[in-house]
Amino acid sequence: MHVLILGAAGMIGRRLTKALAEAGRVGGHPLDALTLLDVVRPDAPAGFAGTVRAEAADLAAPGAAEAAVAGRPDVVFHLAAVVSGEAEADLELGYRVNLDGTRLLLDAIRTAHAADGYRPKVIFTSSLAVFGPPLPPVIGDDWIVTPASSYGTQKAMGELLLADYSRRGFLDGVGLRLPTICVRPGKPNRAASGFFSGIIREPLAGRPAVLPVPDTVRHWFASPGAATGFLLHAAGLDLSRLGLRRSLTLPGVSATVADEIEALRRVAGERAVALIRREPDEAVARIIATWPEAFATERALALGFTADASFDAIVAQHVAEFHAGG
Amino acid sequence: MHVLILGAAGMIGRRLTKALAEAGRVGGHPLDALTLLDVVRPDAPAGFAGTVRAEAADLAAPGAAEAAVAGRPDVVFHLAAVVSGEAEADLELGYRVNLDGTRLLLDAIRTAHAADGYRPKVIFTSSLAVFGPPLPPVIGDDWIVTPASSYGTQKAMGELLLADYSRRGFLDGVGLRLPTICVRPGKPNRAASGFFSGIIREPLAGRPAVLPVPDTVRHWFASPGAATGFLLHAAGLDLSRLGLRRSLTLPGVSATVADEIEALRRVAGERAVALIRREPDEAVARIIATWPEAFATERALALGFTADASFDAIVAQHVAEFHAGG
Repeated sequence: MHVLILGAAGMIGRRLTKALAEAGRVGGHPLDALTLLDVVRPDAPAGFAGTVRAEAADLAAPGAAEAAVAGRPDVVFHLAAVVSGEAEADLELGYRVNLDGTRLLLDAIRTAHAADGYRPKVIFTSSLAVFGPPLPPVIGDDWIVTPASSYGTQKAMGELLLADYSRRGFLDGVGLRLPTICVRPGKPNRAASGFFSGIIREPLAGRPAVLPVPDTVRHWFASPGAATGFLLHAAGLDLSRLGLRRSLTLPGVSATVADEIEALRRVAGERAVALIRREPDEAVARIIATWPEAFATERALALGFTADASFDAIVAQHVAEFHAGG
Repeated sequence: MHVLILGAAGMIGRRLTKALAEAGRVGGHPLDALTLLDVVRPDAPAGFAGTVRAEAADLAAPGAAEAAVAGRPDVVFHLAAVVSGEAEADLELGYRVNLDGTRLLLDAIRTAHAADGYRPKVIFTSSLAVFGPPLPPVIGDDWIVTPASSYGTQKAMGELLLADYSRRGFLDGVGLRLPTICVRPGKPNRAASGFFSGIIREPLAGRPAVLPVPDTVRHWFASPGAATGFLLHAAGLDLSRLGLRRSLTLPGVSATVADEIEALRRVAGERAVALIRREPDEAVARIIATWPEAFATERALALGFTADASFDAIVAQHVAEFHAGG
């Protein structure tokens, strides 16, 4: 099998690459070749016996999508995207990368399908940002998609195109609406959601963290490991089971900020919790108030996608990976 | 006020043009100018005192969208579309006209907004085709959009773009999911839905009509007059009441084929009903089985949109217009 990862240099892309290279298999089949593309050249994985091509590419540039599928990868992971804040700040960039890039990819596959019957599995990372207010406390699989951001709009449009091209038989697609990733490694950033990870990651490293919202704020989380697991699981699924509904909201852990803090206390004690500084920020609170709190993800569960066991398990994964020394 | 109608030569476009010209007003304001565009040159309306520009134009051609809004129309009715069967038969044409044409229009407005603060009301005709199976017997306003056709996909993508550009303040948009129009005038066509109108229109004119599905088939209808009324009502609405959800499923009459036949019998008797020839067509029946049967359109009703009173009223409108002599 030949796997293409678009967005291979990102946080999830790197983990996925590593997991595939280590397993040497994808969806139950031997993995022979990896093509890794991103706007910056991705690193080739260590210890992989197959062929690796790792290149810098802009999917929305002329000819790039055709070149990406020229080697006829059996599985395409499409993780490449301009993130939420950037897509809101720069409308044209967001539509160019998130909508046009996705459409060019799917059209390159359609053209290849017409030429030689090529029909890859396409695993597209979508987002909870496809949902917007008003939202019920628990959102079911039949709930309407009404994005409150340009990023969410672009992801929702990508989901629609993926479903139509799957229905027409050009490709076999699935859109995965990933929960908010926590604990996200790296430096604090200015994303509105950044504090969800920051209040765990920073105190565990002995650094202060700012909490801009009340303890009662509830949201939907998956660990980086769970997110990678969702992508690998999708690669092995019979996607015809999805019917017309090619996008899935994925299972997660519904936790409040208070739940997060208690999990931190259990693993790192009072001294860590004391590093959280409450600085209410009305602007952040207003944004977060429009976000989903919890989902009933019956379809994804029936298809075998599994969430982290608890918020404690999410914290434990981060500790094991970044604080293995204790 | 200056009104632009894109798709002015179509069945609804012609009725809308006539209604606006006769009223001489739109949304409570005097109507000074009409710009009428379509792929064929629309007819100028009779008896309108204001300025009329009627031209052939392909919205998806370079520069056409900019030219369409160059006169800064206050209200834009965007009815232009490749119909369902054609969009399914010719994928590239459907995406070019229904998705790219809509996006080019909205981007031309965005550019004009950036230049001089232009911010028109945009009334976009969407479709029940945004909904696909599995569907409940009565579909509420919160139900998920999962199109079962490329046409429905393109309309759903247009709805998303309209909502995002409204949220960003470039325009003030509303998407109207019209019920299936019945009784559609003109010749029988090969659309899967054609028989819903055919079994009324043809017998009323003394001609035979084919019924390819069982009498129990139920669907959601509006008369051409009601459809025009929805568009005019939207032009007078304060669209900020829509919030993020810029598209509305419109009220209709839920009727079975048996209900249709009884309405025909009441107005034209047994001789007319006898002209309906039952010729079961499995292919048509399979398509129709995926279509919605009824909606609970609470949002549209709260905004003052009103349906035809009954299927009898739908038939009566057609009789009054096309069989005035009796």
